[in-house]
Amino acid sequence: MRRMLIRIEYDGSGFNGYQKQPNARTVQGELERALSVMHKAESWPCTSSGRTDTGVHGVRQPVHFDSPLTIPDERWPMALNSLLPDDIQVLGAMEVDASFHARYDTVGKVYRYRVDTAKRQTVFRRSFAAHFPGNMDIEAMREAAKHLEGTHDFTSLSSPKTDVKDKVRTLFAVSLEEREDGFDVVFAGSGFLYQMVRILMGTLIKVGSGDWPPDVIPAIIEKQERQAAGPTAPGHGLYLEDVFYTKEALDACVKRLEEKK
Amino acid sequence: MRRMLIRIEYDGSGFNGYQKQPNARTVQGELERALSVMHKAESWPCTSSGRTDTGVHGVRQPVHFDSPLTIPDERWPMALNSLLPDDIQVLGAMEVDASFHARYDTVGKVYRYRVDTAKRQTVFRRSFAAHFPGNMDIEAMREAAKHLEGTHDFTSLSSPKTDVKDKVRTLFAVSLEEREDGFDVVFAGSGFLYQMVRILMGTLIKVGSGDWPPDVIPAIIEKQERQAAGPTAPGHGLYLEDVFYTKEALDACVKRLEEKK
Repeated sequence: MRRMLIRIEYDGSGFNGYQKQPNARTVQGELERALSVMHKAESWPCTSSGRTDTGVHGVRQPVHFDSPLTIPDERWPMALNSLLPDDIQVLGAMEVDASFHARYDTVGKVYRYRVDTAKRQTVFRRSFAAHFPGNMDIEAMREAAKHLEGTHDFTSLSSPKTDVKDKVRTLFAVSLEEREDGFDVVFAGSGFLYQMVRILMGTLIKVGSGDWPPDVIPAIIEKQERQAAGPTAPGHGLYLEDVFYTKEALDACVKRLEEKK
Repeated sequence: MRRMLIRIEYDGSGFNGYQKQPNARTVQGELERALSVMHKAESWPCTSSGRTDTGVHGVRQPVHFDSPLTIPDERWPMALNSLLPDDIQVLGAMEVDASFHARYDTVGKVYRYRVDTAKRQTVFRRSFAAHFPGNMDIEAMREAAKHLEGTHDFTSLSSPKTDVKDKVRTLFAVSLEEREDGFDVVFAGSGFLYQMVRILMGTLIKVGSGDWPPDVIPAIIEKQERQAAGPTAPGHGLYLEDVFYTKEALDACVKRLEEKK
């Protein structure tokens, strides 16, 4: 058996999230179906770096699985892509150590959240960016973002629907990138709690729209109550952009984000 | 009864084209369903400037219908949008003369065709641009485009599957716009035959990829045979961008395209 690590890209709009469920179309369900065809088996399990919610997109999401097949690394993407639906694409594959684990070995993740601010959002963007029409104070959001960076207990800024007890995480960089018709926020962190990026975004939008001052953030974190933060922004604006397994790759990414600020 | 002209935008990826069909999801089918709910009727007919094929997108497609309802023009979009699925949006509405006809009164149309040329097309673009990877000779295509402009018999450059006898049409402007990772071609014409833009594009791609020289165009037109032209480019790269009912509006659009060249 060899352990393979693949990177996948998917358009989340046609899926009920990543995690396999009976009677629902999921990314994992489609991936395991393709793997089971390749292995001529009833089912074939795979393990991702984490789950994504309904509508959330994957850009370079890592998944590992074990296989007895002796296919060269560079052939795996085409072999799997020929069995996958056209809203999932395998970008690359490499054999990894048998002890490698796509979830436990992560050292950091990067999420991107896309916001369209024009009065009207075209139908072509409806699945690919959240729509918050109106003027947004980018500088105020940048100031709020600075307060989010660092190591904090993110109880206020994540969903209470979780068994996870330790809610201390580190945000290495929170970077705002302006676009024509909107902006993106990129979050690089040690790890993310359930719905954390969407609640961070709902909170930043409160600041950007002038409802809350930028320095409300420390008080929100302090409270350790979900109600203290802003609403949960919609899933379809969210992209799991990258997942890192070495400190070097993570640091290089954080450096790029710092330079873009 | 009042005659209303509306403009609609739709993401063609979820439809079997514009025209109503039994047992298939179509733009007209969804539109007439919304109109029939508004009018508390079994069905309610509407007339478009023309049809679009499966996967083709609408940006400002005009549709007219008659209604006894006394809703102010500016309220129609919201009223219809609340009954329409989220891949169709009514952009605007205005009362027009009872003799107005969305198809017969057109003086010109504009189509846009989007091409991605990067080696890999992301899953996010798969329904919104055709994928022709590799280097394309933009200047050669611009030269070929010039040969397409003017009044010609477009028998070679349209599908033979039609009852239309007169295949003489005028292309006022064919303009190439370069983008990062690809290019768009915008066609402004008096009218377009069945699959004409897709065949024009398949032919321009032949030129851009170096298979054919730019001055092949006059010979292709001359032949008056479909086989003389390039293949039919896929529907999902195509956008019906605008339809004009006055010469002034059409001329202004053609002028803008000429300036962009």
